[in-house]
Amino acid sequence: MVESASTFDKLPSVQALRAHFQAVTSKAHLRDLLADEARNSQLRVALANEQAGEKTDAIFDFTHAKIDAEGFKKLLKVAEDANLFAKIDSMFKGEKLNNTEKRSVLHVALRMREGESLIVPDSDEGDAVKNVHAVLHRIQEFSQKIRTGEARGYSGKELRNTLIIGIGGSYLGPEFVFEALRTDEAARKGAEGRKLKFLANVDPIDFTRAIEGLDIEETLVVINSKTFTTAETMLNARTVRQFIIDHYSQKYPEEQDKQKFVEAHMCAVSTNLPETKKFGVKDERVFGFWDWVGGRYSVCSAVGVLPLSLHYGFENVKHFLEGAKSIDEHFRTTRDPSKNLPILLGLIGFYNSYICGHDSRAILPYCQALLKFPAHIQQLDMESNGKGVTRTGERFEAGVQAGPIIFGEPGTNGQHSFYQLMHQGRPIPAEFIGFTKSQTPTLLPGEPVTSHDELMSNFFAQPDALALGKTLDQLQKEGVPPPLLEHKRFLGDRPSVSLLFMGALDAYKCGQLLAMYEHRVAVEGFLYGINSFDQWGVELGKVLAKDVRNVFQAKQSKVSSDDIAKQTSEKFNPPTNFLLTQYLQNN
Amino acid sequence: MVESASTFDKLPSVQALRAHFQAVTSKAHLRDLLADEARNSQLRVALANEQAGEKTDAIFDFTHAKIDAEGFKKLLKVAEDANLFAKIDSMFKGEKLNNTEKRSVLHVALRMREGESLIVPDSDEGDAVKNVHAVLHRIQEFSQKIRTGEARGYSGKELRNTLIIGIGGSYLGPEFVFEALRTDEAARKGAEGRKLKFLANVDPIDFTRAIEGLDIEETLVVINSKTFTTAETMLNARTVRQFIIDHYSQKYPEEQDKQKFVEAHMCAVSTNLPETKKFGVKDERVFGFWDWVGGRYSVCSAVGVLPLSLHYGFENVKHFLEGAKSIDEHFRTTRDPSKNLPILLGLIGFYNSYICGHDSRAILPYCQALLKFPAHIQQLDMESNGKGVTRTGERFEAGVQAGPIIFGEPGTNGQHSFYQLMHQGRPIPAEFIGFTKSQTPTLLPGEPVTSHDELMSNFFAQPDALALGKTLDQLQKEGVPPPLLEHKRFLGDRPSVSLLFMGALDAYKCGQLLAMYEHRVAVEGFLYGINSFDQWGVELGKVLAKDVRNVFQAKQSKVSSDDIAKQTSEKFNPPTNFLLTQYLQNN
Repeated sequence: MVESASTFDKLPSVQALRAHFQAVTSKAHLRDLLADEARNSQLRVALANEQAGEKTDAIFDFTHAKIDAEGFKKLLKVAEDANLFAKIDSMFKGEKLNNTEKRSVLHVALRMREGESLIVPDSDEGDAVKNVHAVLHRIQEFSQKIRTGEARGYSGKELRNTLIIGIGGSYLGPEFVFEALRTDEAARKGAEGRKLKFLANVDPIDFTRAIEGLDIEETLVVINSKTFTTAETMLNARTVRQFIIDHYSQKYPEEQDKQKFVEAHMCAVSTNLPETKKFGVKDERVFGFWDWVGGRYSVCSAVGVLPLSLHYGFENVKHFLEGAKSIDEHFRTTRDPSKNLPILLGLIGFYNSYICGHDSRAILPYCQALLKFPAHIQQLDMESNGKGVTRTGERFEAGVQAGPIIFGEPGTNGQHSFYQLMHQGRPIPAEFIGFTKSQTPTLLPGEPVTSHDELMSNFFAQPDALALGKTLDQLQKEGVPPPLLEHKRFLGDRPSVSLLFMGALDAYKCGQLLAMYEHRVAVEGFLYGINSFDQWGVELGKVLAKDVRNVFQAKQSKVSSDDIAKQTSEKFNPPTNFLLTQYLQNN
Repeated sequence: MVESASTFDKLPSVQALRAHFQAVTSKAHLRDLLADEARNSQLRVALANEQAGEKTDAIFDFTHAKIDAEGFKKLLKVAEDANLFAKIDSMFKGEKLNNTEKRSVLHVALRMREGESLIVPDSDEGDAVKNVHAVLHRIQEFSQKIRTGEARGYSGKELRNTLIIGIGGSYLGPEFVFEALRTDEAARKGAEGRKLKFLANVDPIDFTRAIEGLDIEETLVVINSKTFTTAETMLNARTVRQFIIDHYSQKYPEEQDKQKFVEAHMCAVSTNLPETKKFGVKDERVFGFWDWVGGRYSVCSAVGVLPLSLHYGFENVKHFLEGAKSIDEHFRTTRDPSKNLPILLGLIGFYNSYICGHDSRAILPYCQALLKFPAHIQQLDMESNGKGVTRTGERFEAGVQAGPIIFGEPGTNGQHSFYQLMHQGRPIPAEFIGFTKSQTPTLLPGEPVTSHDELMSNFFAQPDALALGKTLDQLQKEGVPPPLLEHKRFLGDRPSVSLLFMGALDAYKCGQLLAMYEHRVAVEGFLYGINSFDQWGVELGKVLAKDVRNVFQAKQSKVSSDDIAKQTSEKFNPPTNFLLTQYLQNN
């Protein structure tokens, strides 16, 4: 890893870019920028389709970003000065980019093809690609056994349902892909007669929701926890285990070995074989991955591949991995940053946040199948780049922040929700994602356009509405009465980017979309010089929660309320102590 | 309505508050503020339970807001100077607060009790409360008929399923309440054997998702559209109507009057009787509301009450309305702002945004049943207060913004997602919502605490983690090696508020929570002097989408591609024209 000598904001190219923005671009209106075709033509890139040769897979259009041709040139210089390609290369080589945890960052290895090779440096694990494919083969075989009914539940029923227990990266990634493929024709066929459900939150309500309408005798449970120690996941796993045991104990009171109930219905994605065994999962039902796969980058590991293969069939998941792989190759080999889609996504993200000063970003897929994509990217991006120090521990200056706040909903739903604020309140850089075709097209007799065209008319209209706005002059010409003029005025000048895929969303494109955003997050992290792969910020809450749990445990163990009061007043500040006391008196 | 003479930021009390924050509070750390018990004791309020007399319903604790005792005094002065109570009174009286559309804002009338009276000024509609209860009675009767099987589908099957077609306020509110009550014991019993599904997005994929697994012969469709012209909702309604007709035409080819299929399966919430009739809905199956109910404030009207009564039974929905009503009364009659929960929520929200300069807000329910609450509040708040001008059309100065960006996920899920950024990246004022009891409590044999206690240990820990942080000194004492010190450091000083309900979430509390947030949004709008009840910012996108739709329609009507190219190049700027052309060539 190339360590920067100083923080990113000291780079001359960053300072030059900022100076140009302040002196020139910030004073131009997007309306005017968009009229400059010499500029526009530089601000889009077509992603060539590897499989189909000449054909375009997707177009990334950032003409609606608030940047001019000169600014874009300067932005590319930032990429150069930040040694982007050196950092990308070191990631693909398996250097320990995650320096605070001394780990390589190799989720790209999860997508490498059989026959490729990657020896992880400073490790004795050998060829990562070989190991990856060994697990993939096991998953293929196992999922086939389950799906064909060769392996069945304890009572002999086919295991048509999959229940995933996992939280964070072990939940959001698989859920995003699950929803994305639900209405894809091939995947849908693969999932016929099957159910996939998720149990993430430790809230017992989530357990109730997850098992609602699920015949446990037909259910295979996947416990997703690398260390097999995640508090929420393990408590949920124990709860489901007990539920299985209770169910069968009543039905088969003669069975002495309750362990058999568990073995027939539970498998695990974990690296902790001693613990999975102790829990009651058979070794051949444990699927591993590696410490170079971060939780939020793990959907292409067994974490996602196992449950999705159980539900959709391995072939569909393979296409998903191939899609991701195609972007890995594009990202690694396209050495001209102005043609490299994830790099451009990252550069514009950095530009919007750091240069233009926006602190949020809306992810707006015009595709209902991507309804969980914003939540996945929210985790991926905010957990990766929500940092206050560089890799080497230099704290950002006051006012300087790395990653933005990410949120979003599918369009057009969002238009009837938060777009009001985007148009007339705070500017929020928007990322529009669309497809030229629908997974499930509809054209009613008598309708002027298909429902998909109706949807996409908004995909094209919104970026212009945000950028162009509507002037007082226009309003006056329309005859708007004076008291309403300012209310109906749109200042415009609000940036967005658009990502348009050719064809309908399928497993392959789903993998592409995932990899684009994974790499864009890495690129932004590289530009800021931060470690996008650790998450120390989640630790303190866990520690303090332990103190609270001890109080609850004391109550559970019938410790006297006086003793508990003493304990809480010593451990907590007065307001927390007060609220906690109210809780204890009322629960 | 009391019109302010000048914009809010010119108020002396606002300037005094800002000066105090800048000179004093901003320099104090929340750690120190929390040590001041004289301060703390002022910064919480208990909501007395109307039904149970003395007992507390909920505690709103804002000790973890970055405010000191002096600042709080100054904030209350702002409430006074902004004439808050005069504005609240004028809302309850039905004055035309929505001045740009010349409408009253009377969602509170939806919760008034039978026998109360409210004559809407300048209207000939008479007693609003009477009219509200007339509709409620019709809903009660109709939903009972459907639920008992007295009224059935065309083929004679019971109508066990409800499909709501609606978008924005006609979707997010009902969905939030639906999910909130799914695991409530009483509501669950009411919904036994029934399904409720939503169709919001115009994306045909959403239609495919909505009808998945739904026997249309057992389904009653509710079309939620006040004007019966909402583009998305009406296209979806036509799509579902065609689906019903196609289904039955195949099954009953002898039936000549296809209209009967539609009448048996569709009802509407709308005020446009001519259009509902034309569409094919019988008048007695149309349930109205009034122009003084804004879409995002409409869940307590037939928009929410009809489908929720069909699904859960009218009694459960009545409790929900009663809960909302209890907060309406608290809000209207508690004339000491330091004891008025929605006012305090609004004041702290205003304080965080405008005085402290935060531009976002995270809604964090530690209750999985509230998983859709953040999305509802996102719409409610951002569409209401995402404005750039005052009621009277004065534009805010550069840099001044009204409502914040709202997002959120249930805890503890969010902890494994975006909390990293909240702790070590950008500060985001957080709103924690919890309950002392669970809807579905679980205690496994052998576990030290219940799952609900496990959940709630995080509810208590996170506000402290955000506020207190962790110092270098603490880390050094723990023996953290020097290169990791800054990575593991938490600056703290990050504000939050906590709302703790006594007991488990039920219909009543769900109504309370809704009304608290509805009124908080209004309070913030009152402070900024904006109109929180219009939404002009959604118009421009609709207009531009029409231009795009015309292009698609031309293609559908086989207009030559040359003519289409000419049309698009005239109508759109070059980059949009380019992308649109790519779309047309590939769809």
